[in-house]
Amino acid sequence: MNEAVVLTPERILEVTEDVLRRYGLAKATVVDVARALDVSHGSVYRHCPSKASLREAVAKRWLDRIDAPLRKIAEDSTGPASARLDAWLRTLFAAKRSRVLDDPEMFQTYLTLAREACAAVKCHKDTMIDQIASILTDGVKQGVFAVDDVKASARAIFDATVRFHHPAHADEWKDADLPARVDATLALVLRGLKAA
Amino acid sequence: MNEAVVLTPERILEVTEDVLRRYGLAKATVVDVARALDVSHGSVYRHCPSKASLREAVAKRWLDRIDAPLRKIAEDSTGPASARLDAWLRTLFAAKRSRVLDDPEMFQTYLTLAREACAAVKCHKDTMIDQIASILTDGVKQGVFAVDDVKASARAIFDATVRFHHPAHADEWKDADLPARVDATLALVLRGLKAA
Repeated sequence: MNEAVVLTPERILEVTEDVLRRYGLAKATVVDVARALDVSHGSVYRHCPSKASLREAVAKRWLDRIDAPLRKIAEDSTGPASARLDAWLRTLFAAKRSRVLDDPEMFQTYLTLAREACAAVKCHKDTMIDQIASILTDGVKQGVFAVDDVKASARAIFDATVRFHHPAHADEWKDADLPARVDATLALVLRGLKAA
Repeated sequence: MNEAVVLTPERILEVTEDVLRRYGLAKATVVDVARALDVSHGSVYRHCPSKASLREAVAKRWLDRIDAPLRKIAEDSTGPASARLDAWLRTLFAAKRSRVLDDPEMFQTYLTLAREACAAVKCHKDTMIDQIASILTDGVKQGVFAVDDVKASARAIFDATVRFHHPAHADEWKDADLPARVDATLALVLRGLKAA
């Protein structure tokens, strides 16, 4: 064993993902993670005090990766808000969709983790809605959106597009008419925000 | 056995529902249905040639019951289209929601049946979208809706409200903020349809 290695939380999570990919969620253990890191499992527990906290950290990391490119669009307050909202939503849909189609087994693993790590998912959803709200606020300032209650409208936009980003609908993301349906829903939503 | 009884398809489906309620989907058999009807199981098979076709007929009956009050709203072309669309959508949400909350076990049974009877579900969805389309057409005639492609817009409305009528989201229908979220999404959708 190599206890001299510098164990960062990031390194542990990276290796945990590899282990999950190799053994699957049901079989992977903290001992497997420790072995892959060439350290004792006590060393892993020092960073993540339980299997549950390790799983929650992996789920959070996965959600953060979805969040990063979205945050960039939400924070770039210079562009026209309407195009930014459109881009933000399409980026979210594409991120979810590519994860299902490119690596369906890993997606299932993450879904299970995400369902367990409810706090992480709740926090992720709140972050998503806050980002939409910040684009809406910019749009109102730019005079392109008419919105009474920014927070409620942000939630309504998240809800109205749920078919394209909620994993429960993943089976429908392979349909040939998906792009047309995305276009039609986004057009409807964006029209609903437009200032008169 | 009472072979003199008049076996209508409606009577068979009614009794099949009772049997499903009593024994559950996994245990209920055609023999149970025949026994409850006091006829031979051959008599049941004469109307429904297989267990699968019996299950499909039950699923279809369930979907038809959801459809009936919606059809009434869709076909009453005299009222203002905007209020009719709002009422149609709220009636759909309430129908799905009451089925989950009032009889969750039976709802699960129907969901399984509906998933198997894919043709019935596909047909039901098409009917729903056609009904929305007919309200949209009336709204365009009344000059209250601006819609380029009625069929695509009808589908977009169905998609944009999926969180409130698709069974995958049933867990969220008990949330205290559901009415507020329904209101916000419907307001957004209806604004998106409004003629300038």
